[in-house]
Amino acid sequence: MTSESAHSSPVIETARRAKEAAAVLAPQPRTARDGALLAIADALVARTEEIVAANAGDVAKARAAGTGESLVDRLTLTPERVTAMAADVRDVVALPDPVGEVLRGSTLPNGLDLRQVRVPLGVVGIIYEARPNVTVDAAALCLKAGNAVLLRGSSSAYATNSVLVEVLREAVASVGLPADVVQLVPGESRDSVRELMRARGLVDVLIPRGGASLIRTVVEESTVPVIETGTGNCHVYVDEHADIDMALDILINSKAQRPSVCNAAETVLVHAGIAETFLPRALEALTQAGVIVHGDTAWQQAGPGLVAPATDEDWAAEYLSYDIAAAVVQDLDAAVAHIRRWSSGHTEAIVTTSQAAARRFTQLVDSTTVAVNASTRFTDGSQFGFGAEIGISTQKLHARGPMGLPELTSTKYIVTGDGHTR
Amino acid sequence: MTSESAHSSPVIETARRAKEAAAVLAPQPRTARDGALLAIADALVARTEEIVAANAGDVAKARAAGTGESLVDRLTLTPERVTAMAADVRDVVALPDPVGEVLRGSTLPNGLDLRQVRVPLGVVGIIYEARPNVTVDAAALCLKAGNAVLLRGSSSAYATNSVLVEVLREAVASVGLPADVVQLVPGESRDSVRELMRARGLVDVLIPRGGASLIRTVVEESTVPVIETGTGNCHVYVDEHADIDMALDILINSKAQRPSVCNAAETVLVHAGIAETFLPRALEALTQAGVIVHGDTAWQQAGPGLVAPATDEDWAAEYLSYDIAAAVVQDLDAAVAHIRRWSSGHTEAIVTTSQAAARRFTQLVDSTTVAVNASTRFTDGSQFGFGAEIGISTQKLHARGPMGLPELTSTKYIVTGDGHTR
Repeated sequence: MTSESAHSSPVIETARRAKEAAAVLAPQPRTARDGALLAIADALVARTEEIVAANAGDVAKARAAGTGESLVDRLTLTPERVTAMAADVRDVVALPDPVGEVLRGSTLPNGLDLRQVRVPLGVVGIIYEARPNVTVDAAALCLKAGNAVLLRGSSSAYATNSVLVEVLREAVASVGLPADVVQLVPGESRDSVRELMRARGLVDVLIPRGGASLIRTVVEESTVPVIETGTGNCHVYVDEHADIDMALDILINSKAQRPSVCNAAETVLVHAGIAETFLPRALEALTQAGVIVHGDTAWQQAGPGLVAPATDEDWAAEYLSYDIAAAVVQDLDAAVAHIRRWSSGHTEAIVTTSQAAARRFTQLVDSTTVAVNASTRFTDGSQFGFGAEIGISTQKLHARGPMGLPELTSTKYIVTGDGHTR
Repeated sequence: MTSESAHSSPVIETARRAKEAAAVLAPQPRTARDGALLAIADALVARTEEIVAANAGDVAKARAAGTGESLVDRLTLTPERVTAMAADVRDVVALPDPVGEVLRGSTLPNGLDLRQVRVPLGVVGIIYEARPNVTVDAAALCLKAGNAVLLRGSSSAYATNSVLVEVLREAVASVGLPADVVQLVPGESRDSVRELMRARGLVDVLIPRGGASLIRTVVEESTVPVIETGTGNCHVYVDEHADIDMALDILINSKAQRPSVCNAAETVLVHAGIAETFLPRALEALTQAGVIVHGDTAWQQAGPGLVAPATDEDWAAEYLSYDIAAAVVQDLDAAVAHIRRWSSGHTEAIVTTSQAAARRFTQLVDSTTVAVNASTRFTDGSQFGFGAEIGISTQKLHARGPMGLPELTSTKYIVTGDGHTR
């Protein structure tokens, strides 16, 4: 392609090799790609000791640098975790092949046959945080969809990722495919991310997975197309016509079952008509679950001394912790307006017994997922039955919501005639 | 959304109004959107005189500025052309409604009902060149798909576009929808384009239609997601096993039927095994069609004095004129390698009687469209049966190839339960 970056550097050379390898991988049938994945699963198990040893180095460094225990835990690989990673790769083998699926097909009036077929994207760049299992998950999903992958993990996991990628490359090569379909982006500094973002024409898409600031930087600076993932300021709206017990269950599950993830609820909105009954019970349940409520005046009055006053920062917050913003709204439309103003467009839930309210809420709320009488926590590739997921897209182009294998593909049209001209 | 641009300006205010209007339009049923389109068609016809008068001013200015006749022709509106624009809008009314289509649906193992439904994108910005019919076409397609549209036409058509957009807005308002679903981006300078490109959070997608330099600027500088359209360096590959008459027909049709468009062929590649027979006949046919050949050594030797020597600039060129680059290649894989190196990824055709060659070419060529024994000129929304098209995407994300109504939508998931929690 004529738009390739002209200059060279270790990152650009890596991307160039990925593009070459992607061209070899793209036409391979499913058996070849699945063969590579099975070889990867076997190799991970066979080389567990080596992987865990490299990881121990990263973990020791992280501890020495005073990293918090929850981050250290996410970084740590044990033999059991390596076995689980291998099992995840085998699960990917079992998923249906997206490549070659015919999405549209017709014979045009002039007799031309038209087919729109799924094809690999080409080269996918993934920028992610400390969890080394992402290295293997992302590579497996990309390979399954026929793509080459460029992995740029956290520098705190560099030794672990280096060994993992080496294991993956050798496994891929052992079945006769180019090792360069899996590569680690060289360099531990932010500069390598910057180069990746400018490698338009070599890299087909960048998927940043991680904190809001990383995602913002990539979105602002990248000339390579980006799929934004994972910022979640999710809302639970308790309608006037809600089953109170169901509303409490859904609220507590959405907020407190796992507060550190993007599909956890960050704000609860309650219809004024049910507030008097609901707020005291909600405060009791939230407090019991260890959740701190940042509420508007109505919430503060319902729980004197229990509720911190909410500001605009609270409405905007993706806490990822045992905190929740809470407001009383006049009606469903006011809840929708609040969501429109503050939501990150990830997932919003309504709890209601009213069919009309459920219908209006699903029509008006413009987010990746709208849940009716269900927890926000279901917005997840494996919950949705897609198998593993590469992330949850919060943008509207190409992919929206949990991204499975089809979202890692593009399409092309094939037009077949007998000498047709216009 | 919290990512909205914080500052204000006339362009940003326009985008803000578009976002508000889009939220009102999105849940409207097909009848309301079709009603607006029918009102637009009627209004265009009723106000033809006013539209043609405003256009005469733009045309006079363009002539005074020494604009070439072909550009002046593209700018000019006659009463007949206005009637044709209205007819095109009525054609859009007749197209199937993309909004609300259920793309996936299943009941999950836990009993949750999952639906993925097409929804409008929101606010679509179109940046385009002089042809004022794009103003009406683009607005009609965006409205049909439930989107608000921001139109940024050429400054040379500003008076025409101002009247057209006024007509469209009044027609939309006459059926009770917000006029702000159709707006002209204020300002005639490049600054207004720049502001549009930074209106992330207000504008959901920008579609530049026009020259390569405009598209490049938008791709490089925009923080709003972009769909790249329309650069076409298309190839015709004549295989060793080609029907020579068919190959000549397809070559001449691809190159010369309308050289100024993006799906016209710009390069012909000929298998060495057929070159001796094909080149003399191709040179005769091309010369007769008024095409200048820029060829490699083999072509130069086949037509002494008839063929200009080709350089890398020719392989890369999107001539859009009666010129063609021409090379002889050793085999099909060499043709694919040439295409991989130089193509813009729009459309490539193979002419062959060999099933194996057709299959290999369609598998290996990574472009929006691969044509087998058919002209490159078929890559077109209306030829493909999509009705009107908003452009031809040459990127891999979201839309690839001719973009019809489905490509002007996003999706959302609706999850329905009975109090489901994790």
